Amino acid sequence: MLSLENLLVEFDAGRPRGLARAITRAESGDGASLMRSLYARTGRALTIGLTGPPGVGKSTLTSALVKKARSLDKSVGVISVDPSSPFSHGALLGDRIRLTEHFVDPKVFIRSMAARGHLGGVSGATGDAVLLMDAFGLDVIIVETVGVGQSEIEIAELAQSTLVALQPGSGDSIQVLKAGIMEIADIFVVNKADHPMANQLKREIRSMMEILQYGAWVPELAMTQALEGTGIDELWSAIERHRAYLFESGEIVRKRRAAFDHQVRQLALGKLQHRLDAAIAAHPDLSIDPYAASERILAEF
Amino acid sequence: MLSLENLLVEFDAGRPRGLARAITRAESGDGASLMRSLYARTGRALTIGLTGPPGVGKSTLTSALVKKARSLDKSVGVISVDPSSPFSHGALLGDRIRLTEHFVDPKVFIRSMAARGHLGGVSGATGDAVLLMDAFGLDVIIVETVGVGQSEIEIAELAQSTLVALQPGSGDSIQVLKAGIMEIADIFVVNKADHPMANQLKREIRSMMEILQYGAWVPELAMTQALEGTGIDELWSAIERHRAYLFESGEIVRKRRAAFDHQVRQLALGKLQHRLDAAIAAHPDLSIDPYAASERILAEF
Repeated sequence: MLSLENLLVEFDAGRPRGLARAITRAESGDGASLMRSLYARTGRALTIGLTGPPGVGKSTLTSALVKKARSLDKSVGVISVDPSSPFSHGALLGDRIRLTEHFVDPKVFIRSMAARGHLGGVSGATGDAVLLMDAFGLDVIIVETVGVGQSEIEIAELAQSTLVALQPGSGDSIQVLKAGIMEIADIFVVNKADHPMANQLKREIRSMMEILQYGAWVPELAMTQALEGTGIDELWSAIERHRAYLFESGEIVRKRRAAFDHQVRQLALGKLQHRLDAAIAAHPDLSIDPYAASERILAEF
Repeated sequence: MLSLENLLVEFDAGRPRGLARAITRAESGDGASLMRSLYARTGRALTIGLTGPPGVGKSTLTSALVKKARSLDKSVGVISVDPSSPFSHGALLGDRIRLTEHFVDPKVFIRSMAARGHLGGVSGATGDAVLLMDAFGLDVIIVETVGVGQSEIEIAELAQSTLVALQPGSGDSIQVLKAGIMEIADIFVVNKADHPMANQLKREIRSMMEILQYGAWVPELAMTQALEGTGIDELWSAIERHRAYLFESGEIVRKRRAAFDHQVRQLALGKLQHRLDAAIAAHPDLSIDPYAASERILAEF
């Protein structure tokens, strides 16, 4: 592995290789040393989370958003979080192909990351990657995650604006959506808006929104046909309106604090779980009940 | 609230009201006092976990399994874990109606429980409810949970035999299944087996099974039409074969230990998270990076 000093030289020089190696270093568990040097530079980027069920066209949407950002001369980072199931790899690799048009653009940095663990959560390294891209100076960072496991909830903790993409006529009506996914949307995106059932989905989302208690920001609803680029300007405007809202209301401070707290919590929980699992494995006594066992283990902590 | 002594008198007398109140007490956070008295009586019941996507007919399957168990003169407990999304309530209440035919049977005890928290996980109280039903002397305990959030992974930790129900032609092909759900199945159930695409789903499951590395137990695949009771005898036989395998191989010891460890872990983690959140909220200093912050907080723990 490159020494930390050499890595930082490359990073500081704005070389993508420096960023790539920094993210790899964070993935391998050594994010602490990097963050000590680079954390102070974070806080500039516009961070967008994009989630939704498989097949909704997230990668196509991502690609269209990258194109839009590039037309505004903004540099872009993309983090694709893959679920760990052996079953989705084919589909996901296929999806990734939609991003290839940006592969040769030096102002677009694309990174796939595996979701850690079988629960499909966004790995701690994803948060690190967002911070590293931010510190590197990328203007826009898009975190794209398939709506499996708890990753779509965690994405809302990391990103400033969360986009929930849905597709019409998918059989997945909103009723079958996972608990919590409706609540995290800052912007709903109905992709494949040329589908005959697109307006029905729009109505469904509107009526679901009436049930939910939203705060000062009521989610916007954008209709897109990402493959053809239709509706992307309007979606981008919605993202900018949400960002303006965050700054004008001061909500951005709470969002940043929440993202920080989330990362601190994940890092600390990771260490605690590790110690806890070791303590439980070493605990041979099954004659007592689980409550008594947990008390005993915590007392020894 | 009934005093613990009176509650235990009712419980010991085999009155369903005693069991109902014990579960309520566990839900309200006071499982420890009950478990101290009752844990030693657990370990007899056959515990079955049933999960799958919404609309697959889990409640109908549950109802059919209850009927089968009753025909064998076994007493049955059913725990339905509800996701907490406001969107699924209608559908779930509709499902529950399918269990009404068993409402008047004194040997069938049915309980709905809310999944705790917005991540849709199986609540800690679900584990308590399983143990309480077991201690109460119910022969068969079925835990039914909709395949949202991480609940279907957790169910495999609690139940001896995990049934994953799938439906043909749902648009949800196996590819879109959540990471981890294929891995937890002891028995796959293709419900609505009269559907024209049932055999295709069966083939899909078989070919997915070839990718996965199974241990000594290779999941069985049962075809059912639960509404008409078709295939339920065969499904029950598969459950009995899995149970026989667990005992003959000694795997049951590992399963019990895993369920115990899972509960201990959840109880201890709950307390640790609570302390951790308080520590993070009280930590005003955002000038350091998340790694340094988590180290500092853990050091103060």
